[in-house]
Amino acid sequence: MKTITSRDNAFYKEIKALATSSQARRKAGHSLLDGVHLCQTWLDLRGAPRHCVVSEGALGNAEVQAIVARCGAVNAPVTALPDALFNAVSQVEHGVHLLFVIDTPQPATPPALVMASVLLDGVQDPGNVGSILRSAAAAGVKQVYCSPGTAFCWSPKVLRAAMGAHFVLEIFEHVELPDLVRTAQIPVLATSGYAAEGLYTLDLRDPVAWVLGHEGQGVSTEVLELATHRVAVPHLGQVESLNVAACAAVCFFEGLRQQQALQA
Amino acid sequence: MKTITSRDNAFYKEIKALATSSQARRKAGHSLLDGVHLCQTWLDLRGAPRHCVVSEGALGNAEVQAIVARCGAVNAPVTALPDALFNAVSQVEHGVHLLFVIDTPQPATPPALVMASVLLDGVQDPGNVGSILRSAAAAGVKQVYCSPGTAFCWSPKVLRAAMGAHFVLEIFEHVELPDLVRTAQIPVLATSGYAAEGLYTLDLRDPVAWVLGHEGQGVSTEVLELATHRVAVPHLGQVESLNVAACAAVCFFEGLRQQQALQA
Repeated sequence: MKTITSRDNAFYKEIKALATSSQARRKAGHSLLDGVHLCQTWLDLRGAPRHCVVSEGALGNAEVQAIVARCGAVNAPVTALPDALFNAVSQVEHGVHLLFVIDTPQPATPPALVMASVLLDGVQDPGNVGSILRSAAAAGVKQVYCSPGTAFCWSPKVLRAAMGAHFVLEIFEHVELPDLVRTAQIPVLATSGYAAEGLYTLDLRDPVAWVLGHEGQGVSTEVLELATHRVAVPHLGQVESLNVAACAAVCFFEGLRQQQALQA
Repeated sequence: MKTITSRDNAFYKEIKALATSSQARRKAGHSLLDGVHLCQTWLDLRGAPRHCVVSEGALGNAEVQAIVARCGAVNAPVTALPDALFNAVSQVEHGVHLLFVIDTPQPATPPALVMASVLLDGVQDPGNVGSILRSAAAAGVKQVYCSPGTAFCWSPKVLRAAMGAHFVLEIFEHVELPDLVRTAQIPVLATSGYAAEGLYTLDLRDPVAWVLGHEGQGVSTEVLELATHRVAVPHLGQVESLNVAACAAVCFFEGLRQQQALQA
């Protein structure tokens, strides 16, 4: 284990840039995983990080010791920072001071929609994107396609909200959704509060692609028109339609319910 | 319409305290509704606010003009602020500059759980609380009971995330949930990722009370043990359980689906 004590150290500057700048993360092709849960899940599902960074104060923590040991076993370098230096690179206020630097996974874009997928068409809020990824992974969705206007999936906020869902999904960003929908080989179901077709009349036992839209404007008109179905979650009362992440969860899990009823 | 131009004006100081301090909001028994959508919905569902506050720059906006006119019709006072003064009291960055001051609704606590309800047992994140309230209202839930450790429902962040759901629900805060659960006259279903009973085996056609817990620790052991059922949303894969607001939406809407199937 190395220890860095100077703010002028080149590696420290690199970590700080990754922590504070989405541009730096994109340019380097690296992401940061902040906290014990994400780092553990990465080791479980994806193996070695590029680098493990811990604060000196966290080295006494048993969970951190176990992760540092696992990094050693897979030959991942570990660097310790004084707490004051670590605080400047972590966005988790009261967490355990542990970070992984990883290569941002960049899967090749497959030629067409052929398996259970989610399309994010301008979803803005990182918390919503993270919650949708988490629900998608829990409901057996395999792939996520994001339009250019959607929040960047590998940002610290989205990673935190998704609790490791990133590591079991294939995530494609900056995808032109209309082209993807035009060539889809499975039904594309665009959610819309104004749709005439209700969720519960759909047969969801075979794989589908769900489209979720911008928090205010919803799915873009072009994608709505190209989709196989426009679908509303039937609801009661006088309030506005559901939050986009709540809507996503209801849709994904209605699909899973139908699939599991088939197996029962 | 009055216009205030001084930061030392007593009413301006009062608004600023309400905007920045949850203690001031509790002490006064007032809440702030920020933005066109919340204010419109309040007028539609609850009538006159105590006070309407607009920025001078927003007075040219057609939606704001309509709301100011409606306030006039119900004898609610309207005060205009220079934009610089307004910016210091609004938490909505790019919104239209319009606020309502309202009396925070404080319904008398009913004697026992008798109708479709949600119990929040230490839910921390204002975005999650808001999303849960929004889903609850959309699914026909009538009452929400919050434990002392749950985020304050009438905070600006929760109000923003719930999009007006507050105004169709009865919300009871600082409720000792174990006492409430002990005397419940309807089934109490506590959600837990570790429960043996799955959501889809439950009969949800009659009213139930759902319990949602803290983002990390879940529902407290005491309430879990007192509940009629401990319920998990069956899911696939290697990720952690659902986000609490996603879990809530799936549960509430499975209930609504069963109720609507009964009617069909």
